[in-house]
Amino acid sequence: MRKFSRIKSSEIGHTPGTLHGIEEEINAEIEIIQFNEETVKRKATEKFTLSLIESGFINWINITGIHDVELVKEVGEAIDLHPLTLEDITNTRQRPKKEEFDNYIITILDMLSYQGEYIQSEQVSLILLENTIITFQEAHGDDFNPVRVRIEENKGQIRKKGADYLYYALLDAIVDNYFNILERNEEVLEDLDDLVVAAKTGPDTLEIIQNLKQEIVFLRKTIWPLNTIFGNLYRVESPLLSKETDYYLRDVYDHIGQLMDEIDVARDMLSSMLDIYLSNKSNKMNEVMQFLTVISTIFIPLTFIAGVYGMNFKFMPELDYKIAYPAVMFLMLIIAVVQLIYFKRKKWL
Amino acid sequence: MRKFSRIKSSEIGHTPGTLHGIEEEINAEIEIIQFNEETVKRKATEKFTLSLIESGFINWINITGIHDVELVKEVGEAIDLHPLTLEDITNTRQRPKKEEFDNYIITILDMLSYQGEYIQSEQVSLILLENTIITFQEAHGDDFNPVRVRIEENKGQIRKKGADYLYYALLDAIVDNYFNILERNEEVLEDLDDLVVAAKTGPDTLEIIQNLKQEIVFLRKTIWPLNTIFGNLYRVESPLLSKETDYYLRDVYDHIGQLMDEIDVARDMLSSMLDIYLSNKSNKMNEVMQFLTVISTIFIPLTFIAGVYGMNFKFMPELDYKIAYPAVMFLMLIIAVVQLIYFKRKKWL
Amino acid sequence: MRKFSRIKSSEIGHTPGTLHGIEEEINAEIEIIQFNEETVKRKATEKFTLSLIESGFINWINITGIHDVELVKEVGEAIDLHPLTLEDITNTRQRPKKEEFDNYIITILDMLSYQGEYIQSEQVSLILLENTIITFQEAHGDDFNPVRVRIEENKGQIRKKGADYLYYALLDAIVDNYFNILERNEEVLEDLDDLVVAAKTGPDTLEIIQNLKQEIVFLRKTIWPLNTIFGNLYRVESPLLSKETDYYLRDVYDHIGQLMDEIDVARDMLSSMLDIYLSNKSNKMNEVMQFLTVISTIFIPLTFIAGVYGMNFKFMPELDYKIAYPAVMFLMLIIAVVQLIYFKRKKWL
Amino acid sequence: MRKFSRIKSSEIGHTPGTLHGIEEEINAEIEIIQFNEETVKRKATEKFTLSLIESGFINWINITGIHDVELVKEVGEAIDLHPLTLEDITNTRQRPKKEEFDNYIITILDMLSYQGEYIQSEQVSLILLENTIITFQEAHGDDFNPVRVRIEENKGQIRKKGADYLYYALLDAIVDNYFNILERNEEVLEDLDDLVVAAKTGPDTLEIIQNLKQEIVFLRKTIWPLNTIFGNLYRVESPLLSKETDYYLRDVYDHIGQLMDEIDVARDMLSSMLDIYLSNKSNKMNEVMQFLTVISTIFIPLTFIAGVYGMNFKFMPELDYKIAYPAVMFLMLIIAVVQLIYFKRKKWL
Amino acid sequence: MRKFSRIKSSEIGHTPGTLHGIEEEINAEIEIIQFNEETVKRKATEKFTLSLIESGFINWINITGIHDVELVKEVGEAIDLHPLTLEDITNTRQRPKKEEFDNYIITILDMLSYQGEYIQSEQVSLILLENTIITFQEAHGDDFNPVRVRIEENKGQIRKKGADYLYYALLDAIVDNYFNILERNEEVLEDLDDLVVAAKTGPDTLEIIQNLKQEIVFLRKTIWPLNTIFGNLYRVESPLLSKETDYYLRDVYDHIGQLMDEIDVARDMLSSMLDIYLSNKSNKMNEVMQFLTVISTIFIPLTFIAGVYGMNFKFMPELDYKIAYPAVMFLMLIIAVVQLIYFKRKKWL
Ligand SMILES: [Mg+2]
Ligand SMILES: [Mg+2]
Ligand SMILES: [Mg+2]
Ligand SMILES: [Mg+2]
Ligand SMILES: [Mg+2]
Ligand SMILES: [Mg+2]
Ligand SMILES: [Mg+2]
Ligand SMILES: [Mg+2]
Ligand SMILES: [Mg+2]
Ligand SMILES: [Mg+2]
Ligand SMILES: [Mg+2]
Ligand SMILES: [Mg+2]
Ligand SMILES: [Mg+2]
Ligand SMILES: [Mg+2]
Ligand SMILES: [Mg+2]
Ligand SMILES: [Mg+2]
Ligand SMILES: [Mg+2]
Ligand SMILES: [Mg+2]
Ligand SMILES: [Mg+2]
Ligand SMILES: [Mg+2]
Ligand SMILES: [Mg+2]
Ligand SMILES: [Mg+2]
Ligand SMILES: [Mg+2]
Ligand SMILES: [Mg+2]
Ligand SMILES: [Mg+2]
Ligand SMILES: [Mg+2]
Ligand SMILES: [Mg+2]
Ligand SMILES: [Mg+2]
Ligand SMILES: [Mg+2]
Ligand SMILES: [Mg+2]
Ligand SMILES: [Mg+2]
Repeated sequence: MRKFSRIKSSEIGHTPGTLHGIEEEINAEIEIIQFNEETVKRKATEKFTLSLIESGFINWINITGIHDVELVKEVGEAIDLHPLTLEDITNTRQRPKKEEFDNYIITILDMLSYQGEYIQSEQVSLILLENTIITFQEAHGDDFNPVRVRIEENKGQIRKKGADYLYYALLDAIVDNYFNILERNEEVLEDLDDLVVAAKTGPDTLEIIQNLKQEIVFLRKTIWPLNTIFGNLYRVESPLLSKETDYYLRDVYDHIGQLMDEIDVARDMLSSMLDIYLSNKSNKMNEVMQFLTVISTIFIPLTFIAGVYGMNFKFMPELDYKIAYPAVMFLMLIIAVVQLIYFKRKKWL
Repeated sequence: MRKFSRIKSSEIGHTPGTLHGIEEEINAEIEIIQFNEETVKRKATEKFTLSLIESGFINWINITGIHDVELVKEVGEAIDLHPLTLEDITNTRQRPKKEEFDNYIITILDMLSYQGEYIQSEQVSLILLENTIITFQEAHGDDFNPVRVRIEENKGQIRKKGADYLYYALLDAIVDNYFNILERNEEVLEDLDDLVVAAKTGPDTLEIIQNLKQEIVFLRKTIWPLNTIFGNLYRVESPLLSKETDYYLRDVYDHIGQLMDEIDVARDMLSSMLDIYLSNKSNKMNEVMQFLTVISTIFIPLTFIAGVYGMNFKFMPELDYKIAYPAVMFLMLIIAVVQLIYFKRKKWL
Repeated sequence: MRKFSRIKSSEIGHTPGTLHGIEEEINAEIEIIQFNEETVKRKATEKFTLSLIESGFINWINITGIHDVELVKEVGEAIDLHPLTLEDITNTRQRPKKEEFDNYIITILDMLSYQGEYIQSEQVSLILLENTIITFQEAHGDDFNPVRVRIEENKGQIRKKGADYLYYALLDAIVDNYFNILERNEEVLEDLDDLVVAAKTGPDTLEIIQNLKQEIVFLRKTIWPLNTIFGNLYRVESPLLSKETDYYLRDVYDHIGQLMDEIDVARDMLSSMLDIYLSNKSNKMNEVMQFLTVISTIFIPLTFIAGVYGMNFKFMPELDYKIAYPAVMFLMLIIAVVQLIYFKRKKWL
Repeated sequence: MRKFSRIKSSEIGHTPGTLHGIEEEINAEIEIIQFNEETVKRKATEKFTLSLIESGFINWINITGIHDVELVKEVGEAIDLHPLTLEDITNTRQRPKKEEFDNYIITILDMLSYQGEYIQSEQVSLILLENTIITFQEAHGDDFNPVRVRIEENKGQIRKKGADYLYYALLDAIVDNYFNILERNEEVLEDLDDLVVAAKTGPDTLEIIQNLKQEIVFLRKTIWPLNTIFGNLYRVESPLLSKETDYYLRDVYDHIGQLMDEIDVARDMLSSMLDIYLSNKSNKMNEVMQFLTVISTIFIPLTFIAGVYGMNFKFMPELDYKIAYPAVMFLMLIIAVVQLIYFKRKKWL
Repeated sequence: MRKFSRIKSSEIGHTPGTLHGIEEEINAEIEIIQFNEETVKRKATEKFTLSLIESGFINWINITGIHDVELVKEVGEAIDLHPLTLEDITNTRQRPKKEEFDNYIITILDMLSYQGEYIQSEQVSLILLENTIITFQEAHGDDFNPVRVRIEENKGQIRKKGADYLYYALLDAIVDNYFNILERNEEVLEDLDDLVVAAKTGPDTLEIIQNLKQEIVFLRKTIWPLNTIFGNLYRVESPLLSKETDYYLRDVYDHIGQLMDEIDVARDMLSSMLDIYLSNKSNKMNEVMQFLTVISTIFIPLTFIAGVYGMNFKFMPELDYKIAYPAVMFLMLIIAVVQLIYFKRKKWL
């Protein structure tokens, strides 16, 4: 489980509504993107004030560094967030959720990325206000670059639509990235499947299978709650979400369904794979044992015959015949050959 | 999984509502069938214009080649499809879905066919407009020939009814073909079952079972979502779907239920089969080991006796008796026979 | 699966609403029973006309031979059945269903019977009209004789009540017969269970268990859909079904629940049985191997000692002692006895 | 399954609403308890008449011997029970149910008791009328004695409340007794678990586990339907059940939930236990085999060396050295000891 | 199961509404904390009277020692609790529940703590009255100290809000502590997982796995019912619970969801772990057997050859050659080496 690097918060036991964070080296940063059909403005700051939000623009305020509890608190007070919302934002153990308040809608979910071979998970909270979106991240780097490009280059409809469409675009970017994660996982799975079916497995196959299984359990835990969240989000009756955006949110919901299907297929495939692997392994071992036992069985009667003519009885007439030794050796050969043929026929060799 | 040939689109990360496709060799083609009770007209073209749709006729416009994104876009603009619908049509990874818009109903599902031993899947999108149906396919070849024949030869009610009945007829043709696929799968299953129960399995049985299992997982994934889709489609309140057609759509829903039942039975059967196969295999191997071990056990005391009389003690009176050698040989025979009888009785041989 | 003899129809791919059947040797037959509180009339014919239905009577028209598509079509036209209903009646692969139309209610289900050791399944369609019931069967023989007797001999309430009560009585007769089928299945199960627990199983036990499992899967598939059907039937708001009859239909629903419980218990029992059987079998085999290995182990040191005194060294002083031979033999005996006692104590023998 | 003694009725195939019973030796008996806050009266009779019910009293009429179909029928006619209710009362295979009619509420469930080691099940039907409760049992003996005592000794509230409270008290007494049954089952389970975990199992452990499993399946089947029954009973809107009694019935519902939890935990525990048992057993057997094989392996090279010096070659110089014999014996000892140390280190011995 | 120390009550069979307890050594104690924004008062007593509750304050009356049935009864009568509530409070086997009455809301759940290695469970009942909360515990020690500190030191909002917020704070404290329990369980799990995957397991691994499994079953049983309870509690329409508190209760509900997720992941991980462990163990044993068998197989042909030249035939010309003995020895060496190479190549050694 060390794979899924996540800094454990120690919320437990604190006064409810109390904020707490882990001091990391990174400095909290505020990125501001403001746009309308005509202009785009970008700023960066470290201090939040309400005056950052400009009317006549769609404001996207992206805050990196939720360990800076003071900053989160200031933002919360400025735009009137509920104390429990602030707690959820800073609690990196929070499971995905969506909540509506009178003045805002908050969605919390996890961005996934591959760091080398490991899936890394980072919590993002997205708050939709009237003409403003505020996103809170744990650390630098996110899935939002395609959205930034679309805003800059005025691609598609993003500059023509409201804050709710931007909200959708950001959520969609996160969900789209799950497909990348899943695709990589599936590629490993299919390569392994070919090896397993061809019985060409190495000593670490079991561990790889277990790791894939844990990855899928983790993906499932990350994505499952989103089914309820998006199944509900496009049905929400709120002045913050236009009817047109509902179509787009329903499309994300659709993608979640597809992700869940693919996770289920991967689980099934993995479980089959484990069955074949264990069956192959056990069969291989048994075949070895059988081969060795057949070898022993061939020699056992021969050794017995040699033992008989090694006995020291005075009166064993055969011992005196010249033909006896080659005859016995020939007999042994016959016995061995008959056994070999018999075992070959039975497919025991 | 290589069995289920499907060209992976790379939708992920694109601007939502942006169309994209894979350039293949095939040229996109538009097939037009127009009919009313009196006449049938058939045309083929490569360019779509609204003037292709004639009033006074039921128009079926069948477009092959969804990789031609420009063509799909033109159609979409001409008949006013939502950008997300266009994206779904061109995204060949789309899971089966049904969506209602103000001016049309779209159903997306997969046509299955056997290419040699492999099931091939092709995505079809069926759009129901007022007196027109537009179908989008990935490549040449489909399940619709029986419908074409019924239109041409004026069989059944198809020429007397509206576009919604044609919509039903096309969907029904796809679903009916699932039965063919399933029947072939079941035949393989039953033949294999006879072999497995009779313990006449070869070295590739395990792989065949795994392949059948993957086929069934694939069929399940293809057909399961249709239960919700058709269970909902006949209840839709839309001017596009007459009450009379609802009865027909309910019949398709019924067929989906039957398909799901049969898939479940096949799954059960397959899982039993794997159990018997593994049990048989393990038992066979154990029987071999037991046989070999019995052989060894018979010779072990005999070899011991031979060893005893091979000892070189000066004073071993037996060695001097004339009767000793045949007596010991007879004793060995008795011991061997007693063992044989004992092991036979115990059914160990 | 050969057990469940059912003639596969080839409906697939046909024009919807087209009837098709398999020409069998049997002639289609129409049996008519008409009764009111005073009289019972019985007729038989081969041709259906509306004039067969008499007012002032409850009319039960029982048609055997749904392969005679023409006859089914005539009946359908005379009493105004929907084309899809006709298709369902003649499609012997139809899963159990219940459908309400404006003028009739149709229930389709399977009658089961034992033919020797095999369960045979026959599809029946029961149509409830105003004062008339029409039943369609595949072949001669059915579960309805107790109902015929009650009508003839005026037993119970059947002659005093309406067509809906007769409808109930016919459905109840089919469901009651499922208990007979299940009881026979359970008897086999319990006998087998005693053998399995006592570890007195033969070479065909595995096959018998698999057959029972398939039977139960089949029973489940036949009976499960009836839960929804009857759970819904007694709640139907229709002038064709009186409130009083609802109590009776609820009673059938109750029986379905009981059947489902018993099928589940049988499944559980069967699965336990397979576990014990496999465990017993594996243990027995292992015990044999252990026994044989213990035998070998006893002789191995003895054979070694014999080997030692079979060596040809010039200077082996023991060889010259008179006591040596009996002493060594005694030593061997001691070693064997000590081993025997040790292995007995360890319960390895 | 012989454990759960239940006389199988042969209802199947009978006219619905026809009563039938099995003639046993016991005579049907009617016990009457009548009470109000001031007085308690007890009577016994064998004939039922409506005059037994006295107004101004709560009447509890307890009828033992439902095989006496005539008696049940008389009671049914006197207090106007539906024919299907009478059938359910006499059908000892009836699964637990609750039904409301215009004039009464009937609950049918099973009383359990231990007869030696076996759980015995007896069906009781409890009918709630206006100021009267009628209970039908199969045989003598029931779970109601604590209730009888509370009535006699005027303990608690039972004498102050209505028939519905008595109805609750009787149902509660049956459900309370399930805890006794379950507790005994759990004790056996825990004792067995200690033995299994300590690997101190005997030859009959497997059978005991199977029996416990069957007992739990049986308890599950008896108690599961009560969840729906009691979850519904306290919500019933009926003049027969006061609001105050609803609290009490909800309490019984609560107990059912607890029973279901405990049954589930027992199932889990049993399944773990079987896994450990099988694992222990298999490991023990394998350890024996390994021990024996190690013994053989130690002797095999020694026996080979003895064989070498048993060869009859003329020119084997070692044979003539005086030191040779003790040297070879010492070599053998060294080989044996080295092997012993090696196998000990590897923990194979 | 001995791990989860819980004193079994013997409620069963008692008059409903009768209280009963187990006399323990501890004396029942009543702790009273009264506060408003300005003051906090703390008292301790052993006798309950209504005069303990002061208006103008939030009163928290914490009663330890529910075995003191008389005390519980007095409290119940003073504040008008339903007899069934009193029974539930004193019944330590009560499963978690929440019930609303006209004048109070009661929640019963279990506080968990580690006593050495064992999880101990203690039942708490929390009753919410108008400005008062009464808590009943089994024994000294609870999860409420953080709440006491917040009241004393006037941290957070607790002193500014009503009794319902205190009710939330107490419930939240219990639920928060579940995370501690789970975290410890997960740590053990992950350490064990590392050992198991590295195949470094000891003889007690199986027992540790079983214990962890039982712990998780126990945690599941304790926490599962809370999902329904809290999912319902924040939706309750009651003058006792303000809308603002609902947000806080929804937050607890959220935490329950997270706990359930983590329990599920732990279950999955544990089950994988058992699979690898058993697979490792079986493979290790088989590898030993294979190694030993290979050793035997190498010596078997050598011993046979020695046997051949140990035969006593008169005419065995080889015996007279000087080169014969070293030649045969060399042959044996070659055979051994060839076998070694072959077995190494096959990876059987
Ligand atoms: Mg909190
Ligand atoms: Mg929270
Ligand atoms: Mg998270
Ligand atoms: Mg980031
Ligand atoms: Mg997307
Ligand atoms: Mg498996
Ligand atoms: Mg998209
Ligand atoms: Mg889409
Ligand atoms: Mg698709
Ligand atoms: Mg095509
Ligand atoms: Mg069809
Ligand atoms: Mg077959
Ligand atoms: Mg059809
Ligand atoms: Mg149909
Ligand atoms: Mg059928
Ligand atoms: Mg028939
Ligand atoms: Mg019946
Ligand atoms: Mg039995
Ligand atoms: Mg009946
Ligand atoms: Mg009944
Ligand atoms: Mg019963
Ligand atoms: Mg009784
Ligand atoms: Mg109770
Ligand atoms: Mg298992
Ligand atoms: Mg009680
Ligand atoms: Mg109670
Ligand atoms: Mg209670
Ligand atoms: Mg509890
Ligand atoms: Mg305490
Ligand atoms: Mg909390
Ligand atoms: Mg780890």
